[in-house]
Amino acid sequence: MPRYAMIVEYDGGPFAGWQRQDGPASVQQTLEEALRRLDPDVPSIAAAGRTDAGVHATGQVAHADMTRPWEPFRLREALNYHLKPAPIAITALEPVADDWHARFSARERRYLFRLIARRAPVTFDRGRVWQVPGPLSLEPMQTAGRMLEGLHDFTTFRASICQAKSPVKTLDEVIVTEHPYPGGREFQFRFRARSFLHNQVRSMVGTLERVGAGAWAPEDVAEVLASADRSRCGPVSPPQGLSLVGVGYDVDPFAS
Amino acid sequence: MPRYAMIVEYDGGPFAGWQRQDGPASVQQTLEEALRRLDPDVPSIAAAGRTDAGVHATGQVAHADMTRPWEPFRLREALNYHLKPAPIAITALEPVADDWHARFSARERRYLFRLIARRAPVTFDRGRVWQVPGPLSLEPMQTAGRMLEGLHDFTTFRASICQAKSPVKTLDEVIVTEHPYPGGREFQFRFRARSFLHNQVRSMVGTLERVGAGAWAPEDVAEVLASADRSRCGPVSPPQGLSLVGVGYDVDPFAS
Repeated sequence: MPRYAMIVEYDGGPFAGWQRQDGPASVQQTLEEALRRLDPDVPSIAAAGRTDAGVHATGQVAHADMTRPWEPFRLREALNYHLKPAPIAITALEPVADDWHARFSARERRYLFRLIARRAPVTFDRGRVWQVPGPLSLEPMQTAGRMLEGLHDFTTFRASICQAKSPVKTLDEVIVTEHPYPGGREFQFRFRARSFLHNQVRSMVGTLERVGAGAWAPEDVAEVLASADRSRCGPVSPPQGLSLVGVGYDVDPFAS
Repeated sequence: MPRYAMIVEYDGGPFAGWQRQDGPASVQQTLEEALRRLDPDVPSIAAAGRTDAGVHATGQVAHADMTRPWEPFRLREALNYHLKPAPIAITALEPVADDWHARFSARERRYLFRLIARRAPVTFDRGRVWQVPGPLSLEPMQTAGRMLEGLHDFTTFRASICQAKSPVKTLDEVIVTEHPYPGGREFQFRFRARSFLHNQVRSMVGTLERVGAGAWAPEDVAEVLASADRSRCGPVSPPQGLSLVGVGYDVDPFAS
């Protein structure tokens, strides 16, 4: 069966997350239904990141096996047509080898988390950012972020339902930046790793926010990380500030 | 009556525009209702820019006259409380002199228009950008934008219902920039002037888009501007890409 890789963008707000499940529609299910309007025998699809309910993506990558070959441009256009009005779009689509896998071939995931610190409720970016009322200090969050980089047992920042075989992961990069925002300040957290544990990014952001607020010292983060004790994690941040912005592959189907 | 100036942010999507009118709720009406929860005798409020239906603001400025003095922080908090769940927020609020006027004291309005050029439907930024399918060229739009700068009769770019006394205005600045966007390109148009005619920004953006698409030459824009003939304007862009991002005053109540 000819295999196609695609970059998938979505507003995670209305969905139960990436993964197909009972209950509210998932992104996977909505995309599979669009595929089956074109080809009823398409098997289940796979994606690089199984984003939680409410988490967005501008650079999710999935692959689908079709029963006949398609011209990539036509397949992309037809999929986007059948996806309407769901807030999901295929922004790129390319043929790949049979053994290329959106999830297992991925060597890097990149996430962006947007946090707004201001008192007035967010209006224009509602559903796209996490808002906290108080001011935050950038430098302690940057210091604490660097303490999370590298090879660690991330049990402290792992959801109890996480199915990963090992909590030991290498976090390649944590970048925290500050930006002007009307009536307040915006903080952006960028994370890069081969793979992440379930809730790892939101657990780290919730903990870094405590550091920015002055409730925790940066060294406290190193200590709770070393403790490998989930109960010592800071509060898990809400999902709506988080986006999967990119996935890296040794053989990038979209390089051109 | 003590007068208070405020910076107002809103998602224009659900509103009939700034101005109070019959039919769907306006931003002005919603804000006046919140004010009257605090003080039933507040007269009608005034704003710097009467944004159209669907147009957003991150830096609208309004003023209100209260029947008794308020501590500014408390008034802002109380207003934001009563504005919920409407996507309107007061991000700053300061006392001003009786003769300071949000509209008549303003010496500069700044607008931002976001245009996304890509084939796949926009999902994450839906309702916040104008999308066109085709690629656009930056440089011709920049050239044409510069031809709009300066003192001109802007009749070509003026809605027939515009109530301004004169179509002659000085457009201080038109800045067009290009940015990466997943699966496409983003173009941002920034306009700065003492005041604008009704629909002027959307008329100029719709015309500049035609230039970027190659359907018009930059010189065509200078020609239709000189013609002072509304029927020669390009298509008026839709409202959702437009935001009022700032208002300038000789005496800035929010400078601190």
